[in-house]
Amino acid sequence: MKFYDCRTAPSPQKVRLFIAEKGLEIDTVEVDLRSLEHQRPEFLAINPAASVPVLELDDGMRLTESLAICHYLEQLHPEPNLMGRDAREQALVLMWNDIQTFEGYLAVQEVLRNAHPAFQRRALVGPEPYDQIPALAERGRLRSARYFERLDAHLASSQWVAGPRFTYADIVGFVYLRFATRTLREDPTEGRAHLRRWRDAVARRPAIESAS
Amino acid sequence: MKFYDCRTAPSPQKVRLFIAEKGLEIDTVEVDLRSLEHQRPEFLAINPAASVPVLELDDGMRLTESLAICHYLEQLHPEPNLMGRDAREQALVLMWNDIQTFEGYLAVQEVLRNAHPAFQRRALVGPEPYDQIPALAERGRLRSARYFERLDAHLASSQWVAGPRFTYADIVGFVYLRFATRTLREDPTEGRAHLRRWRDAVARRPAIESAS
Repeated sequence: MKFYDCRTAPSPQKVRLFIAEKGLEIDTVEVDLRSLEHQRPEFLAINPAASVPVLELDDGMRLTESLAICHYLEQLHPEPNLMGRDAREQALVLMWNDIQTFEGYLAVQEVLRNAHPAFQRRALVGPEPYDQIPALAERGRLRSARYFERLDAHLASSQWVAGPRFTYADIVGFVYLRFATRTLREDPTEGRAHLRRWRDAVARRPAIESAS
Repeated sequence: MKFYDCRTAPSPQKVRLFIAEKGLEIDTVEVDLRSLEHQRPEFLAINPAASVPVLELDDGMRLTESLAICHYLEQLHPEPNLMGRDAREQALVLMWNDIQTFEGYLAVQEVLRNAHPAFQRRALVGPEPYDQIPALAERGRLRSARYFERLDAHLASSQWVAGPRFTYADIVGFVYLRFATRTLREDPTEGRAHLRRWRDAVARRPAIESAS
Protein backbone atom coordinates (compact mmCIF):
# COMPACT_ATOMS: atom_id res chain seq x y z
CA MET A 1 0.00 0.00 0.00
CA LYS A 2 1.25 3.49 -0.81
CA PHE A 3 -0.01 6.87 0.40
CA TYR A 4 0.55 9.98 -1.75
CA ASP A 5 0.73 12.89 0.66
CA CYS A 6 1.66 16.58 0.67
CA ARG A 7 2.74 18.25 3.90
CA THR A 8 1.51 21.70 2.86
CA ALA A 9 -2.07 20.79 1.83
CA PRO A 10 -5.12 20.26 4.06
CA SER A 11 -6.81 17.28 2.36
CA PRO A 12 -3.98 14.73 2.63
CA GLN A 13 -3.33 15.98 6.17
CA LYS A 14 -6.66 14.46 7.22
CA VAL A 15 -5.44 11.06 6.01
CA ARG A 16 -1.99 11.51 7.55
CA LEU A 17 -3.43 12.30 10.98
CA PHE A 18 -5.88 9.41 10.64
CA ILE A 19 -3.03 7.00 9.89
CA ALA A 20 -1.12 8.35 12.89
CA GLU A 21 -4.13 7.97 15.22
CA LYS A 22 -4.52 4.38 14.00
CA GLY A 23 -0.84 3.73 14.65
CA LEU A 24 -0.33 2.42 11.09
CA GLU A 25 2.87 2.48 9.08
CA ILE A 26 2.16 3.08 5.39
CA ASP A 27 4.72 3.77 2.69
CA THR A 28 4.37 7.50 2.02
CA VAL A 29 5.33 9.48 -1.08
CA GLU A 30 5.53 13.26 -0.74
CA VAL A 31 4.08 15.12 -3.73
CA ASP A 32 5.28 18.73 -3.83
CA LEU A 33 2.20 20.73 -4.81
CA ARG A 34 4.10 24.02 -4.48
CA SER A 35 6.41 23.11 -7.35
CA LEU A 36 3.36 21.75 -9.27
CA GLU A 37 4.60 18.17 -9.13
CA HIS A 38 0.94 17.02 -9.25
CA GLN A 39 0.53 18.57 -12.71
CA ARG A 40 3.42 16.56 -14.19
CA PRO A 41 2.76 13.52 -16.41
CA GLU A 42 4.25 11.14 -13.82
CA PHE A 43 1.67 12.10 -11.22
CA LEU A 44 -1.21 12.52 -13.69
CA ALA A 45 -0.64 8.86 -14.57
CA ILE A 46 -1.37 8.08 -10.92
CA ASN A 47 -4.30 10.48 -10.53
CA PRO A 48 -5.58 12.29 -13.64
CA ALA A 49 -7.55 14.60 -11.34
CA ALA A 50 -4.19 15.99 -10.11
CA SER A 51 -5.08 15.82 -6.45
CA VAL A 52 -3.79 14.27 -3.24
CA PRO A 53 -4.44 12.23 -1.16
CA VAL A 54 -4.23 9.00 -3.16
CA LEU A 55 -4.04 5.55 -1.57
CA GLU A 56 -2.60 2.94 -3.90
CA LEU A 57 -3.58 -0.62 -2.97
CA ASP A 58 -1.32 -3.60 -3.49
CA ASP A 59 -3.31 -4.73 -6.54
CA GLY A 60 -2.77 -1.31 -8.12
CA MET A 61 -6.21 0.13 -7.47
CA ARG A 62 -6.10 3.78 -6.48
CA LEU A 63 -8.47 5.45 -4.08
CA THR A 64 -8.82 9.21 -3.96
CA GLU A 65 -10.85 11.44 -1.57
CA SER A 66 -9.98 11.55 2.13
CA LEU A 67 -13.22 10.11 3.49
CA ALA A 68 -13.11 7.10 1.15
CA ILE A 69 -9.48 6.40 2.06
CA CYS A 70 -10.06 6.71 5.81
CA HIS A 71 -13.20 4.56 5.68
CA TYR A 72 -11.20 1.91 3.81
CA LEU A 73 -8.41 1.95 6.39
CA GLU A 74 -10.97 1.74 9.20
CA GLN A 75 -12.46 -1.44 7.71
CA LEU A 76 -8.99 -3.01 7.48
CA HIS A 77 -7.90 -1.83 10.95
CA PRO A 78 -11.02 -1.35 13.09
CA GLU A 79 -9.18 -0.34 16.27
CA PRO A 80 -8.89 2.28 17.57
CA ASN A 81 -12.29 3.14 16.19
CA LEU A 82 -12.41 6.58 14.55
CA MET A 83 -15.45 6.41 12.23
CA GLY A 84 -18.11 5.61 14.84
CA ARG A 85 -19.07 2.44 16.72
CA ASP A 86 -22.74 2.16 15.78
CA ALA A 87 -25.15 3.47 13.14
CA ARG A 88 -25.88 6.62 15.09
CA GLU A 89 -22.30 7.58 15.84
CA GLN A 90 -21.20 6.76 12.30
CA ALA A 91 -23.96 9.00 10.96
CA LEU A 92 -22.83 11.87 13.21
CA VAL A 93 -19.23 11.49 12.01
CA LEU A 94 -20.38 11.59 8.37
CA MET A 95 -22.75 14.48 9.05
CA TRP A 96 -20.08 16.64 10.67
CA ASN A 97 -17.59 15.67 7.99
CA ASP A 98 -19.91 17.14 5.38
CA ILE A 99 -20.94 20.20 7.40
CA GLN A 100 -17.33 21.09 8.10
CA THR A 101 -16.22 20.43 4.54
CA PHE A 102 -18.99 22.42 2.87
CA GLU A 103 -19.16 25.30 5.30
CA GLY A 104 -15.57 25.47 6.52
CA TYR A 105 -13.11 23.96 4.07
CA LEU A 106 -14.76 25.28 0.91
CA ALA A 107 -14.96 28.77 2.41
CA VAL A 108 -11.28 28.88 3.33
CA GLN A 109 -10.28 27.32 0.02
CA GLU A 110 -12.23 30.06 -1.77
CA VAL A 111 -10.17 32.67 0.07
CA LEU A 112 -6.84 30.99 -0.64
CA ARG A 113 -7.40 30.13 -4.29
CA ASN A 114 -9.06 33.38 -5.30
CA ALA A 115 -6.75 35.80 -3.52
CA HIS A 116 -3.24 34.30 -3.37
CA PRO A 117 -0.94 35.11 -6.29
CA ALA A 118 0.39 31.54 -6.32
CA PHE A 119 -3.07 30.33 -7.45
CA GLN A 120 -3.54 32.62 -10.45
CA ARG A 121 -5.28 30.52 -13.15
CA ARG A 122 -5.51 27.70 -10.56
CA ALA A 123 -8.62 28.77 -8.66
CA LEU A 124 -9.89 25.18 -8.45
CA VAL A 125 -8.21 21.90 -7.54
CA GLY A 126 -7.44 19.87 -10.67
CA PRO A 127 -5.51 20.02 -13.92
CA GLU A 128 -7.71 22.63 -15.69
CA PRO A 129 -7.00 26.36 -15.46
CA TYR A 130 -9.64 28.57 -13.82
CA ASP A 131 -9.37 32.31 -13.26
CA GLN A 132 -9.53 33.75 -9.78
CA ILE A 133 -12.76 35.50 -8.77
CA PRO A 134 -11.91 38.18 -6.17
CA ALA A 135 -15.54 38.41 -4.96
CA LEU A 136 -15.31 34.75 -4.02
CA ALA A 137 -12.32 35.41 -1.75
CA GLU A 138 -14.34 38.06 0.04
CA ARG A 139 -17.36 35.80 0.39
CA GLY A 140 -15.14 33.02 1.71
CA ARG A 141 -13.99 35.20 4.62
CA LEU A 142 -17.54 35.98 5.65
CA ARG A 143 -18.62 32.40 5.24
CA SER A 144 -15.73 30.94 7.21
CA ALA A 145 -16.42 33.31 10.13
CA ARG A 146 -20.01 32.02 10.21
CA TYR A 147 -18.79 28.45 10.13
CA PHE A 148 -16.51 28.97 13.13
CA GLU A 149 -19.39 30.62 14.99
CA ARG A 150 -21.51 27.57 14.36
CA LEU A 151 -18.77 25.14 15.38
CA ASP A 152 -18.02 27.12 18.54
CA ALA A 153 -21.73 27.07 19.49
CA HIS A 154 -21.88 23.33 18.83
CA LEU A 155 -18.80 22.66 20.96
CA ALA A 156 -20.40 24.53 23.87
CA SER A 157 -22.50 21.41 24.48
CA SER A 158 -20.42 18.70 22.81
CA GLN A 159 -16.99 17.66 24.04
CA TRP A 160 -15.82 16.52 20.62
CA VAL A 161 -17.28 17.31 17.20
CA ALA A 162 -19.38 14.14 16.84
CA GLY A 163 -20.14 13.66 20.55
CA PRO A 164 -18.38 12.46 23.72
CA ARG A 165 -15.48 10.75 21.92
CA PHE A 166 -12.62 11.76 19.62
CA THR A 167 -13.36 10.66 16.01
CA TYR A 168 -12.51 11.37 12.39
CA ALA A 169 -14.84 14.41 12.62
CA ASP A 170 -12.30 16.01 14.97
CA ILE A 171 -9.42 15.33 12.60
CA VAL A 172 -11.42 16.99 9.82
CA GLY A 173 -12.30 20.04 11.90
CA PHE A 174 -8.78 20.40 13.27
CA VAL A 175 -7.19 20.30 9.81
CA TYR A 176 -9.63 22.92 8.52
CA LEU A 177 -9.03 25.14 11.54
CA ARG A 178 -5.30 25.10 10.94
CA PHE A 179 -5.85 25.69 7.23
CA ALA A 180 -7.98 28.71 8.13
CA THR A 181 -5.44 30.04 10.65
CA ARG A 182 -2.70 29.96 8.02
CA THR A 183 -4.79 31.24 5.11
CA LEU A 184 -6.75 33.98 6.84
CA ARG A 185 -3.75 35.00 8.98
CA GLU A 186 -5.93 35.10 12.05
CA ASP A 187 -6.77 32.70 14.85
CA PRO A 188 -10.40 31.57 14.53
CA THR A 189 -10.35 30.51 18.21
CA GLU A 190 -9.87 34.15 19.29
CA GLY A 191 -12.95 35.06 21.33
CA ARG A 192 -14.38 31.56 20.80
CA ALA A 193 -13.66 29.72 24.04
CA HIS A 194 -15.26 26.38 23.14
CA LEU A 195 -13.46 26.21 19.83
CA ARG A 196 -10.18 26.98 21.59
CA ARG A 197 -10.74 24.37 24.32
CA TRP A 198 -11.41 21.75 21.64
CA ARG A 199 -8.56 22.84 19.32
CA ASP A 200 -6.08 22.64 22.20
CA ALA A 201 -7.37 19.20 23.22
CA VAL A 202 -6.89 17.87 19.68
CA ALA A 203 -3.44 19.48 19.34
CA ARG A 204 -2.28 17.81 22.57
CA ARG A 205 -2.93 14.28 21.31
CA PRO A 206 0.41 12.53 20.81
CA ALA A 207 -0.45 11.16 17.34
CA ILE A 208 -1.66 14.55 16.15
CA GLU A 209 1.42 16.27 17.51
CA SER A 210 3.80 13.82 15.87
CA ALA A 211 2.09 13.79 12.44
CA SER A 212 1.19 17.48 12.09
CA MET B 1 -38.86 8.42 12.16
CA LYS B 2 -39.64 11.41 9.97
CA PHE B 3 -38.05 12.54 6.69
CA TYR B 4 -38.12 16.22 5.71
CA ASP B 5 -38.08 16.30 1.93
CA CYS B 6 -38.55 18.78 -0.90
CA ARG B 7 -39.61 17.52 -4.34
CA THR B 8 -37.91 20.39 -6.20
CA ALA B 9 -34.42 20.16 -4.64
CA PRO B 10 -31.58 17.78 -5.53
CA SER B 11 -30.16 16.94 -2.08
CA PRO B 12 -33.30 15.43 -0.48
CA GLN B 13 -33.98 13.65 -3.75
CA LYS B 14 -30.93 11.46 -3.12
CA VAL B 15 -32.47 10.33 0.16
CA ARG B 16 -35.93 9.88 -1.38
CA LEU B 17 -34.59 7.63 -4.13
CA PHE B 18 -32.49 5.72 -1.59
CA ILE B 19 -35.58 5.08 0.56
CA ALA B 20 -37.47 3.92 -2.53
CA GLU B 21 -34.66 1.55 -3.59
CA LYS B 22 -34.64 0.11 -0.07
CA GLY B 23 -38.41 -0.36 -0.19
CA LEU B 24 -38.86 1.54 3.08
CA GLU B 25 -41.92 3.48 4.19
CA ILE B 26 -40.93 6.57 6.17
CA ASP B 27 -43.24 9.37 7.28
CA THR B 28 -42.40 12.23 4.92
CA VAL B 29 -42.94 15.96 5.40
CA GLU B 30 -42.71 18.16 2.31
CA VAL B 31 -40.90 21.45 2.93
CA ASP B 32 -41.65 23.99 0.21
CA LEU B 33 -38.30 25.65 -0.50
CA ARG B 34 -39.81 27.76 -3.29
CA SER B 35 -42.04 29.63 -0.86
CA LEU B 36 -39.09 29.82 1.58
CA GLU B 37 -40.76 27.56 4.13
CA HIS B 38 -37.25 26.47 5.27
CA GLN B 39 -36.48 30.02 6.39
CA ARG B 40 -39.52 30.20 8.72
CA PRO B 41 -39.09 29.83 12.50
CA GLU B 42 -41.00 26.52 12.52
CA PHE B 43 -38.45 24.87 10.24
CA LEU B 44 -35.41 26.66 11.69
CA ALA B 45 -36.37 25.03 15.01
CA ILE B 46 -35.94 21.68 13.26
CA ASN B 47 -32.77 22.59 11.35
CA PRO B 48 -31.12 25.96 12.08
CA ALA B 49 -29.01 25.47 8.95
CA ALA B 50 -32.23 25.84 6.92
CA SER B 51 -31.57 22.86 4.69
CA VAL B 52 -33.21 19.61 3.68
CA PRO B 53 -32.93 16.62 3.91
CA VAL B 54 -33.42 16.08 7.63
CA LEU B 55 -34.10 12.68 9.19
CA GLU B 56 -35.72 12.94 12.62
CA LEU B 57 -35.23 9.82 14.74
CA ASP B 58 -37.81 8.56 17.21
CA ASP B 59 -35.80 9.89 20.17
CA GLY B 60 -35.84 13.36 18.59
CA MET B 61 -32.28 13.39 17.28
CA ARG B 62 -32.01 15.00 13.85
CA LEU B 63 -29.60 13.98 11.15
CA THR B 64 -28.79 16.28 8.25
CA GLU B 65 -26.65 15.67 5.12
CA SER B 66 -27.70 13.04 2.57
CA LEU B 67 -24.74 10.71 2.95
CA ALA B 68 -25.07 10.55 6.75
CA ILE B 69 -28.80 9.84 6.48
CA CYS B 70 -28.41 7.14 3.82
CA HIS B 71 -25.55 5.48 5.71
CA TYR B 72 -27.73 5.41 8.83
CA LEU B 73 -30.66 3.83 6.95
CA GLU B 74 -28.28 1.25 5.43
CA GLN B 75 -27.11 0.16 8.88
CA LEU B 76 -30.73 -0.26 10.03
CA HIS B 77 -31.85 -1.99 6.81
CA PRO B 78 -28.82 -3.67 5.24
CA GLU B 79 -30.70 -5.20 2.28
CA PRO B 80 -30.75 -4.46 -0.59
CA ASN B 81 -27.19 -3.28 -0.13
CA LEU B 82 -26.58 0.17 -1.63
CA MET B 83 -23.46 1.44 0.16
CA GLY B 84 -21.05 -1.37 -0.79
CA ARG B 85 -20.60 -4.95 0.41
CA ASP B 86 -16.94 -4.84 1.45
CA ALA B 87 -14.24 -2.29 2.32
CA ARG B 88 -13.25 -1.81 -1.29
CA GLU B 89 -16.72 -1.35 -2.72
CA GLN B 90 -17.72 0.93 0.16
CA ALA B 91 -14.64 3.06 -0.49
CA LEU B 92 -15.54 3.35 -4.19
CA VAL B 93 -19.08 4.43 -3.32
CA LEU B 94 -17.74 7.11 -0.96
CA MET B 95 -15.06 8.18 -3.44
CA TRP B 96 -17.55 8.65 -6.28
CA ASN B 97 -19.99 10.35 -3.94
CA ASP B 98 -17.36 13.00 -3.23
CA ILE B 99 -16.07 13.32 -6.80
CA GLN B 100 -19.59 13.81 -8.15
CA THR B 101 -20.57 16.19 -5.36
CA PHE B 102 -17.49 18.41 -5.63
CA GLU B 103 -17.11 18.41 -9.39
CA GLY B 104 -20.71 18.03 -10.51
CA TYR B 105 -23.20 19.19 -7.90
CA LEU B 106 -21.23 22.23 -6.74
CA ALA B 107 -20.70 23.33 -10.34
CA VAL B 108 -24.39 23.15 -11.23
CA GLN B 109 -25.38 24.74 -7.94
CA GLU B 110 -23.02 27.64 -8.74
CA VAL B 111 -24.86 28.17 -12.02
CA LEU B 112 -28.33 28.02 -10.47
CA ARG B 113 -27.67 30.16 -7.42
CA ASN B 114 -25.60 32.83 -9.13
CA ALA B 115 -27.69 33.31 -12.24
CA HIS B 116 -31.35 32.62 -11.38
CA PRO B 117 -33.39 35.65 -10.23
CA ALA B 118 -35.12 33.51 -7.57
CA PHE B 119 -31.79 33.20 -5.73
CA GLN B 120 -30.89 36.87 -5.47
CA ARG B 121 -29.27 37.35 -2.06
CA ARG B 122 -29.51 33.55 -1.59
CA ALA B 123 -26.40 32.44 -3.46
CA LEU B 124 -25.59 29.83 -0.81
CA VAL B 125 -27.69 27.22 0.98
CA GLY B 126 -28.49 28.37 4.52
CA PRO B 127 -30.22 31.15 6.40
CA GLU B 128 -27.63 33.92 5.71
CA PRO B 129 -27.92 36.23 2.71
CA TYR B 130 -25.13 36.10 0.10
CA ASP B 131 -24.99 38.13 -3.10
CA GLN B 132 -24.84 36.41 -6.45
CA ILE B 133 -21.47 36.37 -8.25
CA PRO B 134 -22.13 36.24 -12.02
CA ALA B 135 -18.57 35.03 -12.79
CA LEU B 136 -19.31 32.00 -10.65
CA ALA B 137 -22.30 31.04 -12.79
CA GLU B 138 -20.09 31.18 -15.86
CA ARG B 139 -17.38 29.10 -14.19
CA GLY B 140 -20.00 26.58 -13.09
CA ARG B 141 -21.04 25.93 -16.70
CA LEU B 142 -17.48 25.23 -17.76
CA ARG B 143 -16.81 23.08 -14.74
CA SER B 144 -19.96 21.00 -15.07
CA ALA B 145 -19.15 20.24 -18.74
CA ARG B 146 -15.75 18.92 -17.62
CA TYR B 147 -17.40 16.83 -14.94
CA PHE B 148 -19.75 15.17 -17.41
CA GLU B 149 -16.81 14.47 -19.73
CA ARG B 150 -15.03 12.73 -16.86
CA LEU B 151 -18.10 10.71 -15.86
CA ASP B 152 -18.76 9.71 -19.47
CA ALA B 153 -15.16 8.51 -19.86
CA HIS B 154 -15.42 6.59 -16.58
CA LEU B 155 -18.67 4.91 -17.64
CA ALA B 156 -17.02 3.72 -20.86
CA SER B 157 -15.34 1.00 -18.79
CA SER B 158 -17.64 0.76 -15.76
CA GLN B 159 -21.23 -0.42 -15.97
CA TRP B 160 -22.34 1.56 -12.96
CA VAL B 161 -20.60 4.48 -11.22
CA ALA B 162 -18.89 2.46 -8.47
CA GLY B 163 -18.40 -0.75 -10.48
CA PRO B 164 -20.47 -3.69 -11.75
CA ARG B 165 -23.43 -3.09 -9.44
CA PHE B 166 -26.03 -0.35 -8.84
CA THR B 167 -25.22 1.58 -5.62
CA TYR B 168 -25.78 4.88 -3.85
CA ALA B 169 -23.12 6.39 -6.16
CA ASP B 170 -25.57 5.94 -9.06
CA ILE B 171 -28.38 7.63 -7.14
CA VAL B 172 -26.04 10.56 -6.47
CA GLY B 173 -24.91 10.85 -10.10
CA PHE B 174 -28.45 10.47 -11.46
CA VAL B 175 -29.84 13.20 -9.20
CA TYR B 176 -27.03 15.58 -10.20
CA LEU B 177 -27.53 14.81 -13.89
CA ARG B 178 -31.20 15.67 -13.68
CA PHE B 179 -30.38 18.78 -11.65
CA ALA B 180 -27.95 19.81 -14.41
CA THR B 181 -30.46 19.06 -17.19
CA ARG B 182 -33.04 21.33 -15.58
CA THR B 183 -30.65 24.07 -14.51
CA LEU B 184 -28.47 24.33 -17.61
CA ARG B 185 -31.45 23.73 -19.95
CA GLU B 186 -29.45 21.20 -21.90
CA ASP B 187 -29.05 17.45 -21.86
CA PRO B 188 -25.57 16.52 -20.61
CA THR B 189 -25.95 13.05 -22.22
CA GLU B 190 -26.07 14.65 -25.71
CA GLY B 191 -23.01 13.33 -27.56
CA ARG B 192 -21.97 11.29 -24.48
CA ALA B 193 -23.09 7.75 -25.25
CA HIS B 194 -21.86 6.09 -22.05
CA LEU B 195 -23.47 8.69 -19.86
CA ARG B 196 -26.73 8.25 -21.76
CA ARG B 197 -26.64 4.45 -21.55
CA TRP B 198 -26.15 4.70 -17.80
CA ARG B 199 -28.72 7.49 -17.24
CA ASP B 200 -31.36 5.49 -19.11
CA ALA B 201 -30.54 2.35 -17.12
CA VAL B 202 -30.98 4.23 -13.82
CA ALA B 203 -34.18 5.94 -15.00
CA ARG B 204 -35.72 2.56 -15.93
CA ARG B 205 -35.43 1.16 -12.40
CA PRO B 206 -38.94 0.81 -10.94
CA ALA B 207 -38.04 2.44 -7.59
CA ILE B 208 -36.38 5.38 -9.31
CA GLU B 209 -39.30 5.83 -11.67
CA SER B 210 -41.84 5.78 -8.85
CA ALA B 211 -39.97 8.15 -6.51
CA SER B 212 -38.63 10.69 -9.02
